[in-house]
Amino acid sequence: GSGWIYGSHACLAALSNSRRTIHELLVTESAANRLKLPTGGVVPQIVDPKFIDRKLPKGTVHQGIALKAAPLEWPALEDIADAAPNDGLILVLDQITDPHNVGAMLRLASAFGVSAIVMQTRKAPPLSGSLAKVAVGCLETIPVCLETNIANTLQNLQRIGWQVTGLAGETENELSAVFHENTKQVIVMGAEGPGLRERVRKTCDQLASIPMRSSPVAGEAESLNVATAAGIALYEARRG
Amino acid sequence: GSGWIYGSHACLAALSNSRRTIHELLVTESAANRLKLPTGGVVPQIVDPKFIDRKLPKGTVHQGIALKAAPLEWPALEDIADAAPNDGLILVLDQITDPHNVGAMLRLASAFGVSAIVMQTRKAPPLSGSLAKVAVGCLETIPVCLETNIANTLQNLQRIGWQVTGLAGETENELSAVFHENTKQVIVMGAEGPGLRERVRKTCDQLASIPMRSSPVAGEAESLNVATAAGIALYEARRG
Repeated sequence: GSGWIYGSHACLAALSNSRRTIHELLVTESAANRLKLPTGGVVPQIVDPKFIDRKLPKGTVHQGIALKAAPLEWPALEDIADAAPNDGLILVLDQITDPHNVGAMLRLASAFGVSAIVMQTRKAPPLSGSLAKVAVGCLETIPVCLETNIANTLQNLQRIGWQVTGLAGETENELSAVFHENTKQVIVMGAEGPGLRERVRKTCDQLASIPMRSSPVAGEAESLNVATAAGIALYEARRG
Repeated sequence: GSGWIYGSHACLAALSNSRRTIHELLVTESAANRLKLPTGGVVPQIVDPKFIDRKLPKGTVHQGIALKAAPLEWPALEDIADAAPNDGLILVLDQITDPHNVGAMLRLASAFGVSAIVMQTRKAPPLSGSLAKVAVGCLETIPVCLETNIANTLQNLQRIGWQVTGLAGETENELSAVFHENTKQVIVMGAEGPGLRERVRKTCDQLASIPMRSSPVAGEAESLNVATAAGIALYEARRG
């Protein structure tokens, strides 16, 4: 359903998106003076910062602007995949639920020309809130496709010519050697800790890892943050 | 001075670090049961979660553990630079003040074997709190050197054979072409938005950019998150 989007970047992008249905727009006087709000569309309601505070989770930094919007609708993944260029990229998130990381990956997807981000319907975080804020507007431009079964989705993409690469720390296949020019690439990221699920991993055409030199100490996390790893994988796919 | 460190990863790493002076250790009963706290050293005080809440900024997620510790002391940068291997890496942050980003870069520094992170004394965020939490323990292992003048520091490193590369979106020098094997590399990151300061930029031996395909929309941020860009630069330096 509808959700709150807050923060200057995220809200300005949503307000400039003619495909967004916006139900409510709350702006403080100082934010209204600071930001160039697009004219037309929903009429802003000028309110106290505390009025916005009460609509959002405790402690949210909203920069004086918040709006309630319906989620965007996107074409079916198969149609997006069909229309993708010869060096198309699709980013698949297997059980990644942290809104901050998914928001960061939307920003990456925009920077590296990713055609779509795919998540499992049951596990996807809401496409609003902190995810939208971290995505700094990229939620408006990057198609997010929710699919019921990730492994089946990967097989469907393989059938139409996409190569599927799973990021997995345990393989010795180095990332720098796995991508080839003029191939449509699907990159699959698993959650930090558990990594890719078994059936998803087995469906991949190849696995690849990012070489690291860490010497873990007590309490230290074992690997890169998942959004950073995705950034490196997308960079490498584009460098190809 | 001393600061609060909270969260399981960050606290366990600090408690396992014999170089840390810890003044106070607060743990909830459930965290004490869940975590394997090192024996010896400071005696934990078992408290209610709300007792920890009151010591920390509003809304902090502390996972039932917090400790107050003195900052770590590290050797001088010139000594660290002298002892670095032939493929040594140093990461310099020019005016990057966001604790979340600096914490993320400490984690990256650990993953890619960076010898030290350098920041300007006046601009560095406190080496505790949310920075320590995001660094998931890497604050204990990566030397952080605070210097009064970044451009002078870069010149000192150049004099002893380090090559200095600044990340700058506006150059056409692609990152994949700038690093050479068996060179000691300094990578300099500027703040998102302003980028490198003029004198810092001019001191660099070379500038490099990460090729991107973004098509900015209204409200969209123009570039990658600075920690993601640092991750890509460190990956590329190691790939060399």
